[in-house]
Amino acid sequence: MRPQIVLFGDSITEQSFRYGGWGASLTDTYSRKADIVVRGYGGYTTRWALFLLHHIFPLGSTTPPVATTVFFGANDAALLGRTSERQHVPLEEYKENLRKIVRHLKECSPTMLIVLITPPPIDEEGRQIFATSQYGEKAMKLPERTNEVSGIYAKECVEVAKELGVSSVNLWSKMQETEGWQKKFLSDGLHLTPDGNKVVYEEVVKVFNGAWLSAPDMPSDFPHHSEIDPQNPAKVFQERCL
Amino acid sequence: MRPQIVLFGDSITEQSFRYGGWGASLTDTYSRKADIVVRGYGGYTTRWALFLLHHIFPLGSTTPPVATTVFFGANDAALLGRTSERQHVPLEEYKENLRKIVRHLKECSPTMLIVLITPPPIDEEGRQIFATSQYGEKAMKLPERTNEVSGIYAKECVEVAKELGVSSVNLWSKMQETEGWQKKFLSDGLHLTPDGNKVVYEEVVKVFNGAWLSAPDMPSDFPHHSEIDPQNPAKVFQERCL
Repeated sequence: MRPQIVLFGDSITEQSFRYGGWGASLTDTYSRKADIVVRGYGGYTTRWALFLLHHIFPLGSTTPPVATTVFFGANDAALLGRTSERQHVPLEEYKENLRKIVRHLKECSPTMLIVLITPPPIDEEGRQIFATSQYGEKAMKLPERTNEVSGIYAKECVEVAKELGVSSVNLWSKMQETEGWQKKFLSDGLHLTPDGNKVVYEEVVKVFNGAWLSAPDMPSDFPHHSEIDPQNPAKVFQERCL
Repeated sequence: MRPQIVLFGDSITEQSFRYGGWGASLTDTYSRKADIVVRGYGGYTTRWALFLLHHIFPLGSTTPPVATTVFFGANDAALLGRTSERQHVPLEEYKENLRKIVRHLKECSPTMLIVLITPPPIDEEGRQIFATSQYGEKAMKLPERTNEVSGIYAKECVEVAKELGVSSVNLWSKMQETEGWQKKFLSDGLHLTPDGNKVVYEEVVKVFNGAWLSAPDMPSDFPHHSEIDPQNPAKVFQERCL
């Protein structure tokens, strides 16, 4: 009945319904207008996301999502030879995987609004503190992700979006415009604080509003309660819901 | 693909994805296990909700929700002769409407877990402060809802649940067990603070856990990233996703 907006991504998408989460805020904004469907998979890279594509976005669906956010790269950008190397996806493959995802979504629905979101910046000190809190002496000595490398993945993510004519949010750049972004937006050097979630929410809404998916312009699914005549409630439902 | 849990109710359901909202918390808890679908309609009563039933819960659906929370009564309990009288639904009709909703849901799916949630308690002072802040001199002089009357509706809601063999949460009683509930749980004497949302979330999860809908016991929709062999990622997806 209602259009669907799918949030496809890694842990930053999976956790987007926690306190102040960007997925929850989107759900509230599109209340009675669109359903926000979360398809976030912690730890996943674009390489592994490809295995989910046909399950989550089956071709031939009569009701494909009207919009999808694609938010991978934070794990792809993990460094070789460090503690998260199993997640590493080489830059060229990351780009090609993003292209495959976008092409598949376009095949699902040529009118789907597709928004690529880049990985966030990395607070290397925050990652180190987090690792020590988790593993003590056994914690990594060298960062498993660097801000510089994440920035390269972010840049290429934006390039792929341009190349394929879809929208993008450069979260890596946007967050670093704010002083103190390291602790203000990131809780463990990588995942988002409520303030960090707010940045994602605002940037995604900006893209949706700039396209044809502005919540205030969309119809509500049933009459507002003030439109209901208490003496004849059936009337407005007959007019609006048939 | 994933089972659906529908939240059907009035503004307290519609607003459940705001900061700290109980709908958002449920979505996080059932992450990768069930989709939480919000069907909240601010200002609606059980009388008006009946017009939505066949649209939201069509008979003959091959994928009806596995569970539904039914959370009405806060508006039904508005008093005659006061500023919200257009929402007033007499007690006997409220009960009969709840029965109609439950019977319809059972017809949709005999195995659906149905949870009736009673209206919250009313902080009459809070309502008055809110009205004055909104309308100044023109604000109501007499409360449009009282805690006593909401309590009567709550009691009957629990009775209907017992009568029809479905679950219930007596929010009206539960909240009043905590000292200072008036300001701790209610933001304007009626709607919920983040702490109030937490009560709803915890009580609903308790009912779900006590039935057969405990998130920790439910399967995740795709392999956990730690189960993926980086040298042969296809393997686990072939085993688990076909």
